[in-house]
Amino acid sequence: MASSLLTRQLAISLQQNLRLAAPGCRYVSKTATKTVSEFEYDAPSMKTAVPGPKSQELLRQLGEIQNVGAVHFFCNYEESRGNYLVDVDGNRMLDVYTQISSIPIGYNHPALIKVMTNPNNVSAFVNRPALGILPPENFPDKLFESLLSIAPSGMSRVQTMACGSCSNENAFKSMFIWYRNKERGYASPSEQEVDTCMINQSPGCPDLSILSFMGAFHGRTMGCLAATHSKAIHKLDIPSFDWPIAPFPKLQYPLEEFVRENAQEEARCLEEVEDLIVKWRQKGRPVAGIVIEPIQAEGGDNHASPDFFSKLRNIARKHGCAFHVDEVQTGGGTTGKFWAHEHWGLDDPADVVSFSKKLLTGGYYHRDELLADKPYRIFNTWMGDPSKNLFLSEVLNVIRRENLLEEVTRSGKALLQGLYALQTQYPHILSRTRGQGTFCAIDTCNDATRDSIMLKARNKGLFMGSCGEKTIRFRPALVFKEYHVHQLLNILNDILAEHK
Amino acid sequence: MASSLLTRQLAISLQQNLRLAAPGCRYVSKTATKTVSEFEYDAPSMKTAVPGPKSQELLRQLGEIQNVGAVHFFCNYEESRGNYLVDVDGNRMLDVYTQISSIPIGYNHPALIKVMTNPNNVSAFVNRPALGILPPENFPDKLFESLLSIAPSGMSRVQTMACGSCSNENAFKSMFIWYRNKERGYASPSEQEVDTCMINQSPGCPDLSILSFMGAFHGRTMGCLAATHSKAIHKLDIPSFDWPIAPFPKLQYPLEEFVRENAQEEARCLEEVEDLIVKWRQKGRPVAGIVIEPIQAEGGDNHASPDFFSKLRNIARKHGCAFHVDEVQTGGGTTGKFWAHEHWGLDDPADVVSFSKKLLTGGYYHRDELLADKPYRIFNTWMGDPSKNLFLSEVLNVIRRENLLEEVTRSGKALLQGLYALQTQYPHILSRTRGQGTFCAIDTCNDATRDSIMLKARNKGLFMGSCGEKTIRFRPALVFKEYHVHQLLNILNDILAEHK
Repeated sequence: MASSLLTRQLAISLQQNLRLAAPGCRYVSKTATKTVSEFEYDAPSMKTAVPGPKSQELLRQLGEIQNVGAVHFFCNYEESRGNYLVDVDGNRMLDVYTQISSIPIGYNHPALIKVMTNPNNVSAFVNRPALGILPPENFPDKLFESLLSIAPSGMSRVQTMACGSCSNENAFKSMFIWYRNKERGYASPSEQEVDTCMINQSPGCPDLSILSFMGAFHGRTMGCLAATHSKAIHKLDIPSFDWPIAPFPKLQYPLEEFVRENAQEEARCLEEVEDLIVKWRQKGRPVAGIVIEPIQAEGGDNHASPDFFSKLRNIARKHGCAFHVDEVQTGGGTTGKFWAHEHWGLDDPADVVSFSKKLLTGGYYHRDELLADKPYRIFNTWMGDPSKNLFLSEVLNVIRRENLLEEVTRSGKALLQGLYALQTQYPHILSRTRGQGTFCAIDTCNDATRDSIMLKARNKGLFMGSCGEKTIRFRPALVFKEYHVHQLLNILNDILAEHK
Repeated sequence: MASSLLTRQLAISLQQNLRLAAPGCRYVSKTATKTVSEFEYDAPSMKTAVPGPKSQELLRQLGEIQNVGAVHFFCNYEESRGNYLVDVDGNRMLDVYTQISSIPIGYNHPALIKVMTNPNNVSAFVNRPALGILPPENFPDKLFESLLSIAPSGMSRVQTMACGSCSNENAFKSMFIWYRNKERGYASPSEQEVDTCMINQSPGCPDLSILSFMGAFHGRTMGCLAATHSKAIHKLDIPSFDWPIAPFPKLQYPLEEFVRENAQEEARCLEEVEDLIVKWRQKGRPVAGIVIEPIQAEGGDNHASPDFFSKLRNIARKHGCAFHVDEVQTGGGTTGKFWAHEHWGLDDPADVVSFSKKLLTGGYYHRDELLADKPYRIFNTWMGDPSKNLFLSEVLNVIRRENLLEEVTRSGKALLQGLYALQTQYPHILSRTRGQGTFCAIDTCNDATRDSIMLKARNKGLFMGSCGEKTIRFRPALVFKEYHVHQLLNILNDILAEHK
């Protein structure tokens, strides 16, 4: 069976748990047992074109149940290790997309297997609580140990949620509640407000808005979707809100070569933001909050400067709007800092910071003022999942123990340099190399070329993601090392050399 | 440590897994080992008032991080068993609220602990996939084994999601997409539609609506919330959509005594539904779908007759609206059938059926016609969590092996009879006893009395939920037996006898 390696890992892990005093096992450690030190594979290894025959058969089966148009192939997660994803046909690929950027420390990390096999953790998996009414004994401790130990500057409040969309939806709700409480001077709502909200009408359901940016992606539930503007396929046919949409700066790369041009472009966008805030106030739909990604991901890996974000934060403050930084894709260490917004160097960067993906649980941090004034305003049945907090605690331990943020910075530099070199070598195909940490991207000449390069790479054992119209995005795990960078660059180079 | 019992359980479970051929362990079985047969407690056991001193200290700690106004007490999930929830102060309560109706087969069921300790399952917990692009090998099989084995009549399609709100949001989106595809004759969208949807404007983001009912609860993200009308605290200050809201029948109980009056009331509501559909079409916001709970839960346990639902389903069909039955709270066996809508006896009961809670994963079933026509229209990073499907498969095995639906029917009958008896004995306090299976409720004379009874019951070891304005709702697990019914009734009777 496919799970033989994993079973051995589990046996070792159980033995360690029985010894109790066993130190945390390291990702690659000289002192570790043989099984642990031989944990990761050396390189990709391909047996069939992808998707192979087994994947194709499974696609047919799943196609009876769901639309499978987005499925690449089926995976053998038991056999996947570290940076390598193994498919059901036995193909082993270097994975620099990591489940849409959501695997923090690689596949089957021994530290996470230990979490599973620790008897003290069983009940957290088996009995999912309604966290908002009956939290487990260790819930505050686990929050301090996990999410609060990495809280963004100035934030001591955190609310967990099940996924990224729910995180942003509830962050938006927090901003609306905060804004209306301010407006009514923290008095109780009027009878009219209480009555009208029950039938979806103002003033109880007020005509407030969230300002978002063209190219943004904040999720797909109907509140989030009204702030999402990356691809038509996400939004077509779904009713929406009349909310203001500002232009996101279209910068030229490399950033250091186009400082003046980019500053002008950013100034243009900021001016538009202020205009929109004024306009929407005038038309009776005041902006309660501004939401933005530190790097627009789904929209095409669009960067902006710390100066832009600093000024935007000031505009939010000046107009009494909350400032929500959506770190669902950028958070968790992939830019070389735990939060991408730390690169801005601000003491007071945001009022709300949402997360999910690499954090394994969704949720959002917020300032004290944005705490809901009453229970049941921000609420649902589960409000997250404590078993994910257990995994997150261990992920953070691994990140610290193995200095993975330094690793990301080092690998990211190598990746960016390599991409620049390829771009110089193949200027008719590649352009606009950009990145922070390993959160990197490169544009191709058109979408057909991009898609062709990605398919060829997959068949050579390199699995990448796309974003925007013609961009390849790199989203490796935090355990992606320089060694893996070179594998990636070699495969890309081979494909580009063959490309006509 | 609190986990000693659980550790023993785990050890047994591991031994069984090593033997491999071990048969599934039964909930309470004469042939089981002593540890398994002594699995559940006999009765409540109270040591302090609730919340006790440890809970109060933890409340203070968590209050530094979150609004804790809704927290009842902190739990010791390791020591909780079956129908009994143990708190951090050592109080053991008969739990008939079960984490807002979301624990299917009681706490720490040995069958679920076995899932955790099966080495073949480890990778499903440790490597959460992006199901929409890279599903695991066993994903179709697990769907057949779990969700599709209990699919509602006429439905062979299912989409998993992380929670109830995401399930309903995506069900709404499916209905909007289906409706617009119909309207445009399944042609490609126009350029204007593609362009306008990016800026939240019609025709790309059309002014379609979902018809919902006063008293309904469908979730708290902004799409769901626009269909939710149970309590103002859920909706106040959150922008909403101008969608039609029909009256839900206000029936008199017991139903069999008020057949004529109730039929009149239902006819009135159905007439209003048709009027609203016409009105909203006229004002340019056609109704794409009707959403309804088989029993309004959060809104006060409001029932309607099979005849009402049958006629409503016909109205939906007549006007070209999709019919969405929200079984998030009613699904999973608690009414004595797996889906509450099975009590209606219709061959073609719905176009969409959503679920979550007791199913452990969110999601929705739908008819073929509601399958999204293109990939990435119904999509998000995780699209559920395969580790929850593993637990669900085992829950379904237990339900079948132990005939739990029959058990629910039996216990439900005893509970309903007991509640009627109490209502007869205390007519100045209790009224409107109603229920299906163990999904039961009773009204009190006012909210203060209801809350007082609930607190007293809690201190005597009975933990119940509330809903509506003055209703007590009973939501025990499926392993709730007649024996537990008698415990519940005895405690309630004691409190009512003392009540002034």
